[in-house]
Amino acid sequence: LLPVRTSAAVNEDIEVLVILPKNNSYIFSLARVTPAIEYARQKLKIPGGLYSGLNFNMRYEDSGCGNDALFSLVDRSCEKKPDLVLGPVCEYAAAPVVRMASHWNIPVISAGALASGYRDKDKEYTHLTRISPSYLKMAETFAAMFHHFNWKEALLIFDDDKEERNCYFTVEGVHIKLMDQYHISPVVINSKDEHVNADDLIKLIYESEVVIMCAGADIVRDIMLAAHRRRLTNGSYIFFNIELFNNTSYGNGSWKRGDKYDNEARQAYSALNTVTLLRTVKPEFENFSLEVKRSIQKAGLPDCENCDNINMFVEGFHDALVLYALALHEAIRNGFTKKDGAEITNRMWNRTFEGIAGQVSLDFYGDRYGDFSVMSMTNPEAGTYETVCNYFGVNESFQMLPGFNPEHFTLKGRHRITHTDLPD
Amino acid sequence: LLPVRTSAAVNEDIEVLVILPKNNSYIFSLARVTPAIEYARQKLKIPGGLYSGLNFNMRYEDSGCGNDALFSLVDRSCEKKPDLVLGPVCEYAAAPVVRMASHWNIPVISAGALASGYRDKDKEYTHLTRISPSYLKMAETFAAMFHHFNWKEALLIFDDDKEERNCYFTVEGVHIKLMDQYHISPVVINSKDEHVNADDLIKLIYESEVVIMCAGADIVRDIMLAAHRRRLTNGSYIFFNIELFNNTSYGNGSWKRGDKYDNEARQAYSALNTVTLLRTVKPEFENFSLEVKRSIQKAGLPDCENCDNINMFVEGFHDALVLYALALHEAIRNGFTKKDGAEITNRMWNRTFEGIAGQVSLDFYGDRYGDFSVMSMTNPEAGTYETVCNYFGVNESFQMLPGFNPEHFTLKGRHRITHTDLPD
Repeated sequence: LLPVRTSAAVNEDIEVLVILPKNNSYIFSLARVTPAIEYARQKLKIPGGLYSGLNFNMRYEDSGCGNDALFSLVDRSCEKKPDLVLGPVCEYAAAPVVRMASHWNIPVISAGALASGYRDKDKEYTHLTRISPSYLKMAETFAAMFHHFNWKEALLIFDDDKEERNCYFTVEGVHIKLMDQYHISPVVINSKDEHVNADDLIKLIYESEVVIMCAGADIVRDIMLAAHRRRLTNGSYIFFNIELFNNTSYGNGSWKRGDKYDNEARQAYSALNTVTLLRTVKPEFENFSLEVKRSIQKAGLPDCENCDNINMFVEGFHDALVLYALALHEAIRNGFTKKDGAEITNRMWNRTFEGIAGQVSLDFYGDRYGDFSVMSMTNPEAGTYETVCNYFGVNESFQMLPGFNPEHFTLKGRHRITHTDLPD
Repeated sequence: LLPVRTSAAVNEDIEVLVILPKNNSYIFSLARVTPAIEYARQKLKIPGGLYSGLNFNMRYEDSGCGNDALFSLVDRSCEKKPDLVLGPVCEYAAAPVVRMASHWNIPVISAGALASGYRDKDKEYTHLTRISPSYLKMAETFAAMFHHFNWKEALLIFDDDKEERNCYFTVEGVHIKLMDQYHISPVVINSKDEHVNADDLIKLIYESEVVIMCAGADIVRDIMLAAHRRRLTNGSYIFFNIELFNNTSYGNGSWKRGDKYDNEARQAYSALNTVTLLRTVKPEFENFSLEVKRSIQKAGLPDCENCDNINMFVEGFHDALVLYALALHEAIRNGFTKKDGAEITNRMWNRTFEGIAGQVSLDFYGDRYGDFSVMSMTNPEAGTYETVCNYFGVNESFQMLPGFNPEHFTLKGRHRITHTDLPD
């Protein structure tokens, strides 16, 4: 006997408003992300598929990186409200948009809005799903290391531009995650407005054990050089640089500049570890990556090895549309409509699904679990780095890789007694 | 020969959206402010008057004290946008409303939005007129005193509830105004979440000269008692309490509690000065005050001496409608329309007009100049206070009153040599 087949296809028109910056200096600009969203849209429409009846009408609007995002939402929504908002990424752009959309019962999915404030899903950001790991998720990597290696004190050095404030929000996550159990000293610099004196910063290191930096590559290098000259890179302190995406806010782990300090810097960097996103790929990802790159080239944007055209944001917004399709389809089949934003949002949370680069798991509050890598210099002569361990957020586990050397993460006593020759 | 008379009356319907909290625990709630606005509206309509052709259609909406204010604006404006917004007062309610209204070219006049961030009229808050003196204007009083009395160091103690943050924003104004020329140490307490230990705070006073407090009456008393017990009230330090409106965020200058510390507190408070708003009245004010009180009673709200029913906000919103009428009338007679929000806003700035309680002067950036009073204890036996000097913002001048004693504001050397008896 053949099983009874129920037609699972659901027909629905969905208005999607994508709010991202037009300015291509952002790695999550409209032109860079659009091809990924269109890729997902085409895939969902494959005839006979579960989601082929979902007809997504896309509208792309400039968010800028600040208040303009709200204006875009409101001015486009007065007549007819969208059913789904994708974006914004910038912290100050996202906050009012998410509040307004939540008030209107519209789901918002962003691959940004990574700041810790967005975890308040009870009152303010009720309809926000974060498809990329937030700064708090990243900070779990540090919490796990502090626990594992028994560190007690951290100095957080961060460069705050007082505008987009990527490093401020990055380090805020670490601060919140560590503050209850460890002694944390935050130190703010502002390289945009004032000269940063690495020697002055170094003086603050003495009181700490672990130095966690979020700053541009040149400042990180200055600090490491200053630390090395004062012999602080001998194992009495552990240094970290946070580098989340290929973005000038963050360092890039490279000591090489072609100047006279390269040799010194290479030595200094042997004490520096980098925490970065763990990126995975799977066979399907190749095709996605090729197609997106092709579209980006077609749009006249530069394609290169370092400009990171296929980044966390691009992947995230692809996965956002897929996740929404899953949840909407499920909601409709359970008697709800596309206007039941809270219901659809709820069905996106506490769920695992197959994203373009691998499995994507969202926690109970609709925030994606994150996987992060720690990189260290494994060949001090050549000055080359490799990943020495990975942290998997979904089960809070560490994976040590062959290059991992526990000695490197063990604090050497700073007041160790100097051995003097014993008397004959 | 009779002069040619031009008909100055202008006929126009104006949609006004008033956004204030419905909750009557705020001294600027809808029910408290509405009678003052209606009073102004009736007065403007007097037949034959210059503004009798202006027909104000009022709409009153709940702002809450946070994000709801924006929702009220947007939800009421999608079909038909207002021509004028009055309010919000709360800092976090006002910011998104002013941004949105500015984007829509709608003038906003508030008797609140006192935080320093709102002075950015170039980009973010282009259409905001502040009809009450902001915290920065209040801070000028301190700047003038620091200059006049040659003080150098200030300790700013403020109670930050992390919600409405009245004291945070109050003290922020002082900080900004003094930071370039003096040494400022801010100290934050949070009496809502944790016990405040006055003795711990006192320890910080030693390094300073002038202590400026913004906190509830009980905390100010605890600090003054602790300071008195350590003999810090003998003239080596100058103490200030900021008390802007009758609001529980601020102290009320009263040492009396009916407990066993009253006598000690009275002595301690002889070293405490209070900075507060200078309030003026004129004959017409009496009628206004009576009418507003009558309406408030009719609405079933308590009327009493201490609950400050006729406060800066109530006066301010009255004057706001008058000022708008002046500017709109002028703009229309010059060929503009009510939809030229930037033009009307501009005509409200850098202008002096007659408000309900006296002259109101707005500076070049549309922020009202402020007049403030300093009160000191002039009868230590009775423990009574009086105003000893006034600060007038419009010409940055001080007026010393009979009770003023320059000794009281002169720092006595703290390391003065003790006089010992001379040998015979």
